[in-house]
Amino acid sequence: MSERPVGHQVPVGDEGGSPASSGPAGPPPAEPSHAERCRTLVAGASRGALSTLAADPAGYPYGSVASYALDDDGNPLFFVSLMAEHTQNALRDPRSSLLVTEPVPEGADPLASGRVTLLGDLSAVADDDRPAVRDRYLAANPTSAYYIDFGDFAFYRLTVASIRYVGGYGRMSWVDPAAYAAAEPDPLAPAAAGIIEHMNADHAEAQVLYCRHLAGRPETTEATMSAVDRYGFEMIAVGPSGRAAVRLAFPAPCTTGDEVRQAMVTMVAEARHLAVPTN
Amino acid sequence: MSERPVGHQVPVGDEGGSPASSGPAGPPPAEPSHAERCRTLVAGASRGALSTLAADPAGYPYGSVASYALDDDGNPLFFVSLMAEHTQNALRDPRSSLLVTEPVPEGADPLASGRVTLLGDLSAVADDDRPAVRDRYLAANPTSAYYIDFGDFAFYRLTVASIRYVGGYGRMSWVDPAAYAAAEPDPLAPAAAGIIEHMNADHAEAQVLYCRHLAGRPETTEATMSAVDRYGFEMIAVGPSGRAAVRLAFPAPCTTGDEVRQAMVTMVAEARHLAVPTN
Repeated sequence: MSERPVGHQVPVGDEGGSPASSGPAGPPPAEPSHAERCRTLVAGASRGALSTLAADPAGYPYGSVASYALDDDGNPLFFVSLMAEHTQNALRDPRSSLLVTEPVPEGADPLASGRVTLLGDLSAVADDDRPAVRDRYLAANPTSAYYIDFGDFAFYRLTVASIRYVGGYGRMSWVDPAAYAAAEPDPLAPAAAGIIEHMNADHAEAQVLYCRHLAGRPETTEATMSAVDRYGFEMIAVGPSGRAAVRLAFPAPCTTGDEVRQAMVTMVAEARHLAVPTN
Repeated sequence: MSERPVGHQVPVGDEGGSPASSGPAGPPPAEPSHAERCRTLVAGASRGALSTLAADPAGYPYGSVASYALDDDGNPLFFVSLMAEHTQNALRDPRSSLLVTEPVPEGADPLASGRVTLLGDLSAVADDDRPAVRDRYLAANPTSAYYIDFGDFAFYRLTVASIRYVGGYGRMSWVDPAAYAAAEPDPLAPAAAGIIEHMNADHAEAQVLYCRHLAGRPETTEATMSAVDRYGFEMIAVGPSGRAAVRLAFPAPCTTGDEVRQAMVTMVAEARHLAVPTN
């Protein structure tokens, strides 16, 4: 074995919400930080459960449905009826949270999917900000176009002060709000479902090679991609001793489907090379 | 016109959460009460947003994902990890709510779909109740089978004290908890999607007849079923002057797809009879 594998194996699981990057001079992050995962999850949806504090019964947490957009720092922006319960609640007491959940695949355990709770105070958007907020909200919620200029509605912002991330069983942490505000949603997220479908439909053999030769699972007989992000991808490797979750990092972060394709080709060549050692 | 139409037209909209039935001797309800709609909506799902009160930041409402089953009175039953935030929150302060939402059709306005917020205190299920609660929970949440006997989990019940129903724009009310506890989930709900699909695919002409001759919309050129429940069904009637929501009551409540089919046939005959008056 004369070369370092280009895709290096990284553990799958809780990395405690620490920043993924080790600085400009360090290697690329092995996987997204929890701050990045939160930001990606929240940016990938436009509807969540808004919790406020009810007047009657007094002080009870009150869950309601809310559509949202995001400002540059990832704070949710709402367009609410002044008559709605959550708005009346927020006027009395600004304490609130927004729960956003990943879609749950049909038949899957809902508690294995990711979700984020953003906690903070809910307050009316300043008049100066209104035009910019309106544009963002409309872009994220096209069906709001027909009531966006109603007079008895107003824009509200939840200023995030505390963040709970649950990525599934045993993968959870409190996330630093500053890291969340600075994090970029994964640019690969919109393409991820298509990449996974394509890889599982057309490149099953390549995935077995990845598991056998790059991920230290030489007994792998079957492999299915389960997730992909800018830093790498995850597979379920199946072999005589059972199933295991495996993660491989890309040689360099990928921001487009084309870059993923190139990385996959490079990694297949590397896996084949390792499969037949020359010395 | 010698006969009373068997399907009588009823207004579509807010009926204020009052009980639908006018008593054993009265006519069948024109449409489900808000208590029945809530009970049906909550019974049709097994996952919601549970709001509790956080310790840090203190007193903030904290939204989390929770799977549930229902007891005989429609109180949600949860199976929670003792380490989970919502469980720790409930141990300090039992005030909570569960938000349950109808599925939102692809591309539809999420605020037009129904949702229910059940508010009440969250407390551990008594040991005596555990076996029965366990059976219900497992039936509603099959994927919980592999951890249902873990020692660091416990069953909790949200005892409903207050209920907010939002059926869409302008259709909302606070629902009497006793009416909710007594209400039966619509027995037709599991069949509703199939009935709507079948009617719209194969019986477009019949629906135009219903709108023209039973619902007082003689100018109807096109009609699409949008909802069906044990008491009747709703259509979008399209004509030269635009679109309108129309509701017709069944001659008698229907609890099965077969009964719906018979009612529809009776109503088509009635509509044809009214279309060609004999005198």
